[in-house]
Amino acid sequence: MVDRGLLLVLSGPAGVGKGTVCKALRERMPNLVYSVSATTRNPRPGEVEGVNYFFKTKEEFRRMIEQEELLEWAEYVGNYYGTPRPFVESMLDAGRDVILEIEVQGALQVKKKFPQGTFLFLAPPDLEELENRIVGRGTETEDVIRRRMEVARSEIELMDHYDYVVVNDEIDCACERIEAIITAEHLKKDRQVHKYMKWLKEVT
Amino acid sequence: MVDRGLLLVLSGPAGVGKGTVCKALRERMPNLVYSVSATTRNPRPGEVEGVNYFFKTKEEFRRMIEQEELLEWAEYVGNYYGTPRPFVESMLDAGRDVILEIEVQGALQVKKKFPQGTFLFLAPPDLEELENRIVGRGTETEDVIRRRMEVARSEIELMDHYDYVVVNDEIDCACERIEAIITAEHLKKDRQVHKYMKWLKEVT
Repeated sequence: MVDRGLLLVLSGPAGVGKGTVCKALRERMPNLVYSVSATTRNPRPGEVEGVNYFFKTKEEFRRMIEQEELLEWAEYVGNYYGTPRPFVESMLDAGRDVILEIEVQGALQVKKKFPQGTFLFLAPPDLEELENRIVGRGTETEDVIRRRMEVARSEIELMDHYDYVVVNDEIDCACERIEAIITAEHLKKDRQVHKYMKWLKEVT
Repeated sequence: MVDRGLLLVLSGPAGVGKGTVCKALRERMPNLVYSVSATTRNPRPGEVEGVNYFFKTKEEFRRMIEQEELLEWAEYVGNYYGTPRPFVESMLDAGRDVILEIEVQGALQVKKKFPQGTFLFLAPPDLEELENRIVGRGTETEDVIRRRMEVARSEIELMDHYDYVVVNDEIDCACERIEAIITAEHLKKDRQVHKYMKWLKEVT
């Protein structure tokens, strides 16, 4: 019997470095499966069905919504984007850990549909640093920056819905923390005890 | 403000290698504080008060029991042994992680008095291996061995009271697993979120 994999949901405020950490993590942990999103937008040159995205028509996507086949979904610039549950479930059943990198609202949707996931909030070292990252992106107006700060603040208030807070001070350090969390989650009693109970039944 | 330390309770069946793993762990993690027991037995040559044990008279020990100053205690061959709570609390307050290596019944006592601890069950790779370890200790009679196996079985059934199950297949692997658990426990949301909430209050 294969131990079921973990669904790791990596989320956090805009600009905190989710994509960079996720990419580094996948290089460090080649066995980690990256959740593939479904979308109704057209494939771009080089994009491969089932690798970059599952490409769907709007009708197909709406059917997936109705049949609750999505862990989360959103509409963005006239197209649908979402996380197909069957892909994730099949990987977990095969004992693979799956990582899903997603913005905060999406993570909350996933939590409702898959509360047994492990929810990681990637956090800035402090709010000043976050402000630097938001401001440092380009030559934005004060209004844009203020709005981004407000968004970041409300996102930090959402931390409470997560299991772990991982500070993204250095990419390698953040990855090491996430690796430790993955190891620890696999060692949780509820994931281990059934093996011993089975042995007990066999020897008695 | 210093983050409070973790109380790690390392327990498991007799013969599983608690002492060996604990010793290796302390060498790998010099900042880890080893909980010092109190005892009414006489000091042996070379034993240092406050390092090996807190040496107490029986009257002192009974007073500690009455005043609930012990996280657990037991009587063994006419002497008392126990874990003084004030020492543990002062180390945790100073931000130090404390490890307490203890047999299963003691761990259950600690859990009642300090449920916020992290309870690690050190487990044999499988029951056959546990049986080998129990038999392999010496030239015990069949009865002794059978009784030990029964004890081990009932201890494994106690796994359910623990947070994590750490298989002791190789000492270094077991230590790495425990280190990962310590890292992950420090990253749990409840331990992190107050810092960010404080920052939020400061910037708004």
